[in-house]
Amino acid sequence: MALVVMKFGGTSVADTDRIRNVARHIKRETDAGNQVAVVVSAMAGTTNQLVAWTKGAAGESVVEPREYDAVVATGEQVTAGLLAITLQAMGIAARSWCGWQIPIVTTDAHCSARIAGIDGAAIKSCLATGEVAVVTGFQGIEPDGQRIATLGRGGSDTSAVAIAVAIEADVCDIYTDVDGVYTTDPRMVPKAQRLAKVSYEEMLEMASLGSKVLQTRSVELAMTNGMRVRVLSSFAEPESLEPVKKGAWPEIGTIVCDEEEIVEHQTVSGIAYAKDEAKITILRVDDKPGVAARIFGPLAEANINVDMIVQNVTADGAHTDMTFTVPASELPRSLKVLNAARQEIGDFQVASSADVAKVSIIGIGMRSHAGVAARMFAALSEKGINIIAITTSEIKISVLIDAAYTELAVRTLHSTYGLDAE
Amino acid sequence: MALVVMKFGGTSVADTDRIRNVARHIKRETDAGNQVAVVVSAMAGTTNQLVAWTKGAAGESVVEPREYDAVVATGEQVTAGLLAITLQAMGIAARSWCGWQIPIVTTDAHCSARIAGIDGAAIKSCLATGEVAVVTGFQGIEPDGQRIATLGRGGSDTSAVAIAVAIEADVCDIYTDVDGVYTTDPRMVPKAQRLAKVSYEEMLEMASLGSKVLQTRSVELAMTNGMRVRVLSSFAEPESLEPVKKGAWPEIGTIVCDEEEIVEHQTVSGIAYAKDEAKITILRVDDKPGVAARIFGPLAEANINVDMIVQNVTADGAHTDMTFTVPASELPRSLKVLNAARQEIGDFQVASSADVAKVSIIGIGMRSHAGVAARMFAALSEKGINIIAITTSEIKISVLIDAAYTELAVRTLHSTYGLDAE
Repeated sequence: MALVVMKFGGTSVADTDRIRNVARHIKRETDAGNQVAVVVSAMAGTTNQLVAWTKGAAGESVVEPREYDAVVATGEQVTAGLLAITLQAMGIAARSWCGWQIPIVTTDAHCSARIAGIDGAAIKSCLATGEVAVVTGFQGIEPDGQRIATLGRGGSDTSAVAIAVAIEADVCDIYTDVDGVYTTDPRMVPKAQRLAKVSYEEMLEMASLGSKVLQTRSVELAMTNGMRVRVLSSFAEPESLEPVKKGAWPEIGTIVCDEEEIVEHQTVSGIAYAKDEAKITILRVDDKPGVAARIFGPLAEANINVDMIVQNVTADGAHTDMTFTVPASELPRSLKVLNAARQEIGDFQVASSADVAKVSIIGIGMRSHAGVAARMFAALSEKGINIIAITTSEIKISVLIDAAYTELAVRTLHSTYGLDAE
Repeated sequence: MALVVMKFGGTSVADTDRIRNVARHIKRETDAGNQVAVVVSAMAGTTNQLVAWTKGAAGESVVEPREYDAVVATGEQVTAGLLAITLQAMGIAARSWCGWQIPIVTTDAHCSARIAGIDGAAIKSCLATGEVAVVTGFQGIEPDGQRIATLGRGGSDTSAVAIAVAIEADVCDIYTDVDGVYTTDPRMVPKAQRLAKVSYEEMLEMASLGSKVLQTRSVELAMTNGMRVRVLSSFAEPESLEPVKKGAWPEIGTIVCDEEEIVEHQTVSGIAYAKDEAKITILRVDDKPGVAARIFGPLAEANINVDMIVQNVTADGAHTDMTFTVPASELPRSLKVLNAARQEIGDFQVASSADVAKVSIIGIGMRSHAGVAARMFAALSEKGINIIAITTSEIKISVLIDAAYTELAVRTLHSTYGLDAE
């Protein structure tokens, strides 16, 4: 008998028919004698509707975060109740749990709270009676026990992993609308392949570099606690999958695990891309000590996340050009902040473009292989793709390119590193 | 400075525009220096949608009441949050309160729980800081603090009165889509008049006899605790109304209060009607002791509410005919129960019809006036309306008639007792 956490996202619970399908997935596990805790998101579209209402209510004002949380948290409460009812109708004992009932204690950073701690006792004794615990994802309660707090969009993955850790589950299964983690986006590259296993570190890079399969925080949490996560499809016929077995669950979907569990590493295991980047170039600013601080200080204060930074000295040696990226949605605000800081920065010209994309290669194997970067640059150069900026970490290399070349770059790199399916 | 509870129903908060209108009503009161607690229903249509989903989830099975409550209670939580956001956007300090946060403790009869007790302390200290407390109607939490329980449809009126009692409010204002309590349904009788005041007892009879302005339980609670309730329209221009003044609030809408506050009583103050009745006649059952118990016992066990009962002995003296009413929705089930009890009751024939209506006259003044009933029967007889059954209480007389005559009967009685507007 295994202890399993199953998480279902918004598209998997979009209506009562799909909720019934989810219930069949759960039945497969309980029929096999497993104890099951389920974490659910709001029905697809619900959260957007609720958010739109809060904006409508606030008008020109900012929505108060605590009230935002009170409103938006209802989405998961509805799904949890409906799934419990569906399970009961199938003869499976079940009850719904709101975050505050467990409790899932969060920080008081409303709208983007972090989980501070989960008391697993109530859920565990619920499971011990043979009851399925259906838990609202994405939410918890402030430390003082008063107000509901949400984890921010996509937080349900994090809730699932945190609950799996709290109740010492054998595995945390994340059901989504894809059947695993791919070497790259299959909609862009038909030859993309599903990865049977991927390490936490690689998954973390993929998540933060634009892959939408798992939320970054959930991968961090899984890595910290050594919780095995499987990514699999809720749209697979429930009865066609094998139930979890303690210690040796079936290798379906993609298993996210410690790198030591992965025997042979590919040099590069995945290609990620992100189109929601914008590039800002500050031209001909005086090349004096502290200029970077004077540029990036005000942006940091304005809470704008600067990503790739490239600095070049101009031909005259007295000036420097500085290029960096920000989220495309923050471009107008970034330019405003820079203009306001013109006095401190000194005179400069500015050029910007939202027409750029970041393409990244990711792989644990990179650490032990030389020449991975050189091969990347050569492959892109052969296709005439100009690199605007480069950043690297131990297990990933990202380049900024003209957005029009995104697909060409991703396909080229996918075959360069031998990832194409045959 | 007065302490005011304001309650707004589903049509008054149906969208963000209407919620803004509600906020203006509240602003009128806070501008006048009043402390305000608000009780809200779910946005019109929301509860029906949520209930439909629970039914969809349950399929052929019965919806588990605790999960039903968890799902349906979200409707009010959304409205409370949205109203708090709207108030804040208007510069008015406000926060939303769920039933479990106050807490409003209920019995554990899920779906139709009664309020067991409210701790007014949290709300009172919230109000003392000048903050408006926006409370979810219709719900509370079980005594053990675990599961959400709802009060049943229309329970928000009861929540409002209970909160008014708990925080010792000066008045409980119920805002609805009509501007007060009328002598009868104005859609049926254009000459119906708004009552400036009505006693708890009369309001109670009106509520249980089909007037939909206030929920019966809320009137009971107000009467028990001597809480003054005003019924007024949320669609009135908020600024056109006078704010509440301590001890002498403006006489707008209808004030529901102790009969002693009403100086001159009309003999009859209102005419009510209900079309959702069905009549069952048991023909030629043996006229022996205990026959009534044998008929009504099984119905009571099946939780079917029997209302008007008439018994006649037949011409041969050995048999009796028994006529009574049940809610129209319960007619098929009632007939089934009676057939199942045929052995105990003895042989009988049965006739039934859902084509009947109950018309009632209500008035505190009836107690001190003779001949009120005789005048009623004469007026109906003059119009050729046949009376099938009669029931009376100290302050009301109800007759059961053919449904086709409902409007004629109501109009006739409305002018018989001098209630027509000039």
